[in-house]
Amino acid sequence: MKKVKFGIIGVGRLGYEHACNLAARIPAAELVAVCDGNLERAKEVAEDLGVSAVYDDPAKMCADPEVEAVAIVTNTNSHLEMIRIAMEAGKHVFCEKPLASTVAECKEVEKIVEAHPEQIFMLGFMRRYDYSYEVAKKKIENGDIGDLVLVRCYSQDPRSIIEGTLEYAPRSGGQFIDMSIHDMDLIRWITGCNPSKVWAIGGCYEFPQYADWDDGDNVGCLMQMENNVMAFFYAGRTAAHGSAVETEILGTKGMLRIGSTPTDSLVQVFSENGVCQECYQDFLTRWHYAYIREMEVYCDAVLNHVQPTPNVYDGTDSNRIAELCKESFIKNELLKFE
Amino acid sequence: MKKVKFGIIGVGRLGYEHACNLAARIPAAELVAVCDGNLERAKEVAEDLGVSAVYDDPAKMCADPEVEAVAIVTNTNSHLEMIRIAMEAGKHVFCEKPLASTVAECKEVEKIVEAHPEQIFMLGFMRRYDYSYEVAKKKIENGDIGDLVLVRCYSQDPRSIIEGTLEYAPRSGGQFIDMSIHDMDLIRWITGCNPSKVWAIGGCYEFPQYADWDDGDNVGCLMQMENNVMAFFYAGRTAAHGSAVETEILGTKGMLRIGSTPTDSLVQVFSENGVCQECYQDFLTRWHYAYIREMEVYCDAVLNHVQPTPNVYDGTDSNRIAELCKESFIKNELLKFE
Amino acid sequence: MKKVKFGIIGVGRLGYEHACNLAARIPAAELVAVCDGNLERAKEVAEDLGVSAVYDDPAKMCADPEVEAVAIVTNTNSHLEMIRIAMEAGKHVFCEKPLASTVAECKEVEKIVEAHPEQIFMLGFMRRYDYSYEVAKKKIENGDIGDLVLVRCYSQDPRSIIEGTLEYAPRSGGQFIDMSIHDMDLIRWITGCNPSKVWAIGGCYEFPQYADWDDGDNVGCLMQMENNVMAFFYAGRTAAHGSAVETEILGTKGMLRIGSTPTDSLVQVFSENGVCQECYQDFLTRWHYAYIREMEVYCDAVLNHVQPTPNVYDGTDSNRIAELCKESFIKNELLKFE
Amino acid sequence: MKKVKFGIIGVGRLGYEHACNLAARIPAAELVAVCDGNLERAKEVAEDLGVSAVYDDPAKMCADPEVEAVAIVTNTNSHLEMIRIAMEAGKHVFCEKPLASTVAECKEVEKIVEAHPEQIFMLGFMRRYDYSYEVAKKKIENGDIGDLVLVRCYSQDPRSIIEGTLEYAPRSGGQFIDMSIHDMDLIRWITGCNPSKVWAIGGCYEFPQYADWDDGDNVGCLMQMENNVMAFFYAGRTAAHGSAVETEILGTKGMLRIGSTPTDSLVQVFSENGVCQECYQDFLTRWHYAYIREMEVYCDAVLNHVQPTPNVYDGTDSNRIAELCKESFIKNELLKFE
Repeated sequence: MKKVKFGIIGVGRLGYEHACNLAARIPAAELVAVCDGNLERAKEVAEDLGVSAVYDDPAKMCADPEVEAVAIVTNTNSHLEMIRIAMEAGKHVFCEKPLASTVAECKEVEKIVEAHPEQIFMLGFMRRYDYSYEVAKKKIENGDIGDLVLVRCYSQDPRSIIEGTLEYAPRSGGQFIDMSIHDMDLIRWITGCNPSKVWAIGGCYEFPQYADWDDGDNVGCLMQMENNVMAFFYAGRTAAHGSAVETEILGTKGMLRIGSTPTDSLVQVFSENGVCQECYQDFLTRWHYAYIREMEVYCDAVLNHVQPTPNVYDGTDSNRIAELCKESFIKNELLKFE
Repeated sequence: MKKVKFGIIGVGRLGYEHACNLAARIPAAELVAVCDGNLERAKEVAEDLGVSAVYDDPAKMCADPEVEAVAIVTNTNSHLEMIRIAMEAGKHVFCEKPLASTVAECKEVEKIVEAHPEQIFMLGFMRRYDYSYEVAKKKIENGDIGDLVLVRCYSQDPRSIIEGTLEYAPRSGGQFIDMSIHDMDLIRWITGCNPSKVWAIGGCYEFPQYADWDDGDNVGCLMQMENNVMAFFYAGRTAAHGSAVETEILGTKGMLRIGSTPTDSLVQVFSENGVCQECYQDFLTRWHYAYIREMEVYCDAVLNHVQPTPNVYDGTDSNRIAELCKESFIKNELLKFE
Repeated sequence: MKKVKFGIIGVGRLGYEHACNLAARIPAAELVAVCDGNLERAKEVAEDLGVSAVYDDPAKMCADPEVEAVAIVTNTNSHLEMIRIAMEAGKHVFCEKPLASTVAECKEVEKIVEAHPEQIFMLGFMRRYDYSYEVAKKKIENGDIGDLVLVRCYSQDPRSIIEGTLEYAPRSGGQFIDMSIHDMDLIRWITGCNPSKVWAIGGCYEFPQYADWDDGDNVGCLMQMENNVMAFFYAGRTAAHGSAVETEILGTKGMLRIGSTPTDSLVQVFSENGVCQECYQDFLTRWHYAYIREMEVYCDAVLNHVQPTPNVYDGTDSNRIAELCKESFIKNELLKFE
Repeated sequence: MKKVKFGIIGVGRLGYEHACNLAARIPAAELVAVCDGNLERAKEVAEDLGVSAVYDDPAKMCADPEVEAVAIVTNTNSHLEMIRIAMEAGKHVFCEKPLASTVAECKEVEKIVEAHPEQIFMLGFMRRYDYSYEVAKKKIENGDIGDLVLVRCYSQDPRSIIEGTLEYAPRSGGQFIDMSIHDMDLIRWITGCNPSKVWAIGGCYEFPQYADWDDGDNVGCLMQMENNVMAFFYAGRTAAHGSAVETEILGTKGMLRIGSTPTDSLVQVFSENGVCQECYQDFLTRWHYAYIREMEVYCDAVLNHVQPTPNVYDGTDSNRIAELCKESFIKNELLKFE
């Protein structure tokens, strides 16, 4: 039973989740090194997971010959630098989304990845590896819903976490580049192409501070895809019911909806409120198994030496779309892609 | 467009609903006379509905040559007497459920009805005429679910109306003879037979006063039908979510559920409570169209001179089962039917 | 019990539905005259509903002193002419949607209606009077979902009736002016304003003949409303599951969805296909009670001498939006309203 | 990071699932030995999971000093013998349900377990550790649904696997002792007591061969619990929709339903069949995480040296109830427990 030996860079909330998965939930993975700018945090996680090698310098971890693959779960701003370090040290790289902060940076990442064709690179758009999305994709490919007509994607963060969101917002990239970029990846994955035109609107419906960052607390965008499929996405920060991601794929012969009732259990509650299904409050709960599954796929790719998807170009294109949407939102104009 | 001319006896809450239906919602019906022990109430309803003939004496109303058919919506205790008066006056009779207070009285009603074979008699178990039940019945008859295995019937009154229920309980017949009798009719209608054995349990889970009337606030009963189909019914007075009637028909090739989410609208509410569908609080709302539909069927029967169902024998059998269940409940014994 | 005496012009499929409602399902209405260009059809309906006055000339029916109000259920092309005839004959007028074929015609209707301020005029956008929509509107007005962010409206015709649709399409006004106009009315009703900008896309995903009429078999449109609420509507002719109208109202504190599962019964079917709810195949089934309810509202308005909504200006604005959307669709451009 | 070293006895379908979990999905577990009567199978599984110690003799595996805990996943008939061997070798024991084939055997197991109080014993009723059941249990304990009134439990195997079921049926213990025993455990767990009376019915609705084993293809049972809560369970082998386990807990202030729509994804399919959610076909899919979770709990118990539940007495009581239900079913009599 061959295992891929991982070092992880960045063990904040999501990084810790990946670290746990690599340490104990993925048969083909082994976590051998933990790196975090905060050395205390790195030590704590390493001890918790039984890992002996601890670093606060990514370059040093990447010099560790024990490490075969590097999982990058740092701030988006540092992705380019981390990818460069790991790739140049000869490591396979798994990098969390988005690929980088700007399209210009994405292009640099492309060059680095292209310079190391033998090393396996994968970008962490985990929604593609959620079981429900896998089920839906198979039905689409099987022709169950005919030809594609419309893809609708909603991403909502719960109001209950708005404080944290507001604090994080200025450096996160905002609705388009941080949040909706998941939906851009999904739309590209489902339709197989890029948009030809986009028009993004929305604004600050409750939290005026988003305007300071050229952003809105709720935004929406209509896209005409190159193959004329319609795509509408919406991203909001004020969902009462929870952490909700819904995707609809409407075809000429049927329709699929994923996550319309974003529940994490099979419990129905009959009460004064009627018949209710309670919702996720937390994206880590929603995507727990998708994070595991994508890493299983990545380990398979490393062990079998094939390049998996989403790849570096998927990452660049999602960033390109996101930047265009943001520009459309700021100008309130219909813009062409390319 | 031939219409059946109705007199109604009893215009309390449900009687008023029937009166409105006869007056203005059923093309083949016309309301020509209103009778109520409370003459003021009768006058008020008659004026509201544009009816000129008003009575406080059922015998006098039944002597009115204008009246062709009589709708009886009085207390169960008086059904026998009202049916006798109307039938002997030569009128067609529609009588609300249950047929009578006791099996002995039911037997007397049978004789009266049998003595007037030209007059059309129908008992008001309206659930049979609810659209959802009609859809389900057709699927069963069509063989969609194979052979019957289990019928499960729940009838729940909302906690919100418990005060009224408690006041009415002592003279209502209780869970078995007033409430579950609807389910006995449904079970007989669906399975086409009577039970062979019954065992009823339950008790006072919150309102001890039910024990004073040899009753419980929540009761349940397992029945083995003559054709070996299993039937389980439950009746409760403390439903948080509303006025809930659920029926499940489980067959060897499929299953149908009616009313599992007892909502009256197509609205989903996404809120802090999750994704909810609000429920009926009121049986008249739930069964509004079933009450209209059963009366349309009755008018058709009168105009075409055929005897509809549920008939007088259906009424007697449901009372017989209800009495047996109550006896089983009191003795906590398994009892045979017949 | 005062009743409004109606004459109806046009007793095709929907006209017959209105005729039945006026004749027997609405306490405050009475149907006294039937008019149809096809005299045989008019006679047949009149006989069926027990109406003695029959016409094939609308002007003659409008001269009938017995008639107080006229229900117009003819082709959209003739609405202007029918409204003129009825209004000038001193009758109250209920007219089916859309108000007219073009904005220019709508403006002429406005003048006619303004010239007869004592006569009650109402436009038949029945969705506003559907029970589920009434429930949702109350919740919005009650502040349950906070401030409005996004309204999403889907209108789908079932594939099963595509043949009839294709035949009717060339003279119907198409997706925007015939079908989506319902959603334009809903969006205006919910948001309380008109759009400021629209961009419509879509096309012929399966039936190329729609292109001959400058139309698509599936179209979508993003609108920015004057109050900055986002609105997205979609209209399609190829729904596998049935006649589906879904409306979502997303606010800063909650979300409502109407008709996400467009079923007409409370039956769940458990079969090889999973757990299913069957859908409406027919718009008359879906909106049966909305058609009754809007006419009840109209009768109330006539009896109380108040002008109800939707009014003539609502009608014009919906046509204006529809024309703009169609122009945007043809040009594939973002267009301003006004 | 301390790990419990496991040997597993029996690596058939469910045993293999447990083996995979112990090998790679549970941080606190390590699989160090595999034993199966079929040595080839044991070798195959061991190789697949990277385990070096392989046995076909349970006694020899239990003599392996490397093994700390033994997971028993053999035929029910051999549970007593396996538990004896493992316990007497000083190992901790996790045993799949049911505890044994007969109450008499269960009593012997009790003696063995009592003789080794320092060794941790747990019985594998995994449903208690399913996330949805955990959510429901917390709500009950929190008082959200008031006092318990009724527990309803359905266990259904899909028709699609009936061939395998029929082959396995004669030696499985049948509906009561193999299948419904899960529900007996759930009912005991939820109500906190045993039944006082039971009446079981049902029969062969499609597969007459079950009668040869004093069993039915579909059976049901009403139980009156010692605390007067009502409990109804149903077990069937002919479910069209899939592998369905539903549990309802009805209280005086609310109701919970678990698994009413037994789906494993968040996908809704809109098609000619209506709006559908597809169901599990396979119990291993349904309970995948419950099997992991129960083993996590067991490892915690071993590491912290506490005795977890369900314990050996839970096992005996469920077998006692199952035997009584089977006797009631055969005699068609109401029987007392004790």
